[in-house]
Amino acid sequence: MSGVVVPLKSTKNTNYNSGEKLASLEPLLELVKSDMERVNRLILSKAGSDVDLIPEVARHLIDSGGKRLRPMLTLAAASMCNYTGTHHITLAASVEFMHTATLLHDDVVDESDLRRGRTTARRVWGNQASVLVGDYLLGQAFRMMVEAGSMQALDVLSQAATVIAEGEVLQLSTAHNLETTQDEYMAVVKAKTAALFSAASEVGPILAGSGKNAVSAFRSYGTNLGLAFQLIDDALDYGGSAKTLGKNVGDDFREGKVTLPILLGYRRGSQKERIFWKEAIEQGQNDDGRLEEAMRLLHEHNALGDTIDRARHYCDLANDALATFDDSPHKRALIEVLEFCLMRAG
Amino acid sequence: MSGVVVPLKSTKNTNYNSGEKLASLEPLLELVKSDMERVNRLILSKAGSDVDLIPEVARHLIDSGGKRLRPMLTLAAASMCNYTGTHHITLAASVEFMHTATLLHDDVVDESDLRRGRTTARRVWGNQASVLVGDYLLGQAFRMMVEAGSMQALDVLSQAATVIAEGEVLQLSTAHNLETTQDEYMAVVKAKTAALFSAASEVGPILAGSGKNAVSAFRSYGTNLGLAFQLIDDALDYGGSAKTLGKNVGDDFREGKVTLPILLGYRRGSQKERIFWKEAIEQGQNDDGRLEEAMRLLHEHNALGDTIDRARHYCDLANDALATFDDSPHKRALIEVLEFCLMRAG
Repeated sequence: MSGVVVPLKSTKNTNYNSGEKLASLEPLLELVKSDMERVNRLILSKAGSDVDLIPEVARHLIDSGGKRLRPMLTLAAASMCNYTGTHHITLAASVEFMHTATLLHDDVVDESDLRRGRTTARRVWGNQASVLVGDYLLGQAFRMMVEAGSMQALDVLSQAATVIAEGEVLQLSTAHNLETTQDEYMAVVKAKTAALFSAASEVGPILAGSGKNAVSAFRSYGTNLGLAFQLIDDALDYGGSAKTLGKNVGDDFREGKVTLPILLGYRRGSQKERIFWKEAIEQGQNDDGRLEEAMRLLHEHNALGDTIDRARHYCDLANDALATFDDSPHKRALIEVLEFCLMRAG
Repeated sequence: MSGVVVPLKSTKNTNYNSGEKLASLEPLLELVKSDMERVNRLILSKAGSDVDLIPEVARHLIDSGGKRLRPMLTLAAASMCNYTGTHHITLAASVEFMHTATLLHDDVVDESDLRRGRTTARRVWGNQASVLVGDYLLGQAFRMMVEAGSMQALDVLSQAATVIAEGEVLQLSTAHNLETTQDEYMAVVKAKTAALFSAASEVGPILAGSGKNAVSAFRSYGTNLGLAFQLIDDALDYGGSAKTLGKNVGDDFREGKVTLPILLGYRRGSQKERIFWKEAIEQGQNDDGRLEEAMRLLHEHNALGDTIDRARHYCDLANDALATFDDSPHKRALIEVLEFCLMRAG
């Protein structure tokens, strides 16, 4: 089962795509490197507790090699807006804790056994510890926000926390429903994924005391990057290989998750195919043979290609959002993140 | 199985006990009545969401007839310190949301089927919804704290959120361990129950801009009331009747919860009795016959009486904490809460 190839030289109007070299996270990583080391130290220290189980469970996720894209957005956005203080470190760690708490709770809610190719915390320590350590990390996230001392940033991040939970609840009702519309699905993605990308980006200019326009621009960049990121993730679940992704192809399929590729495949399928999807997603007939058939159908209807195409649309919006800023290494790095995001599905 | 009788005229030095009439929550309820109506309206409005499942699950708990003692503490403490603004309403609602979120997560962690005599949310809507709606309410709690605009209150309440989660995790490790010491048990109670009582009380003088001494006094009052409250709850689980408590006697026993009465019963028991406790609490042999035997042993070793005695000790400390304040209806009502708390076990 081969992955979906995304041409780096897009036929669409993606003017941010140089098309000359492979897009990479490297420029961003390099720019935020020293700040990120401070964030990582803060994360380890704030995951500590006299209650041994807490750092144990927290570090299982913290050490699992996530990209930490969200805190990097906070750092890069703050630097790009010429922030010279230290609160961006605190807020970046806070953002990563919010994300980690969500993952812990998600794995309980989804009854997942694997995350980034590793056994989930709930499989090692049980659902109880996952729920409670998630609560602890969320509490620590809020304490760090308070430490950072910006009421506006607190407002943005605490609102994101409720929107994320709202999105997760909304997802419960769409989880196995193949009649979910694209709009309904995107509303879930906007809440559960894009809201944190948005808040993580927005607090940069807020800390820097940049104007309303800069704050709005970063909010738009983060939101649209988040939407694209989730769609690419959805496509990858049917298009990558377990080896490179650290995640089994077909996880979403086996969990009966209704994602955009499935919605497109279902809507575009014949009557007979729709019965196949209902059996697979709603009734849990999802063995390996069924997964292969699902992949075949998704390719036949270009469901994966179009999912990536939707992602490209959002990357375009994110690119536009930063257009009015002067050229800078940070701006270039943030724009390369968009191309990297699209390229992941390749 | 009769309840434990607590003499209203205590033989101990409880100088706050008039001994002439039954202690009641009425004076407190009367003093905060109009404020509490505003809190209740705010709670209903902030439990709302376009995602239908959220208000549905949230209102299941909100409407379940809890006493709302925690938000009343915030209101009374603020008024007693002559606070004239409106943020005590916001923080009181925030405190109740933190509590409600904890209950939702607790029922998942404890796999409870009943809460206050009603089917738990997780039995009606599932663990998934309970975890996520809990997250939503916690997020809303933080948003309200931010709205209230006091960094010091935010600090106190967000710290309480992490301490509560820490206490719940700590409880996982003591949950079925009969060798838990009283000190270890009290450390759990201090974190999981007393921290919120403490924060709820402390934010009153903080909002009012009272001095450091007033803030410390209310922190002490809240902490010690919280400790007493939990111990009385523990005793009630072996001493009350399902009819009046809205809760089945023996819930803790059937869940294998190690509470103070059990710890005392175990430590004071014969070798043979310790085997009985191990079978009951650690191995889950907890049918009705075993429950009756457990109650008999607890009475024999005065484990319930001494649990209530420990609670009285903490009520004494709480009473002392308020001693330096001038007499006022609020002070009298808050002190009557202590007596009411002890009387619940009667």
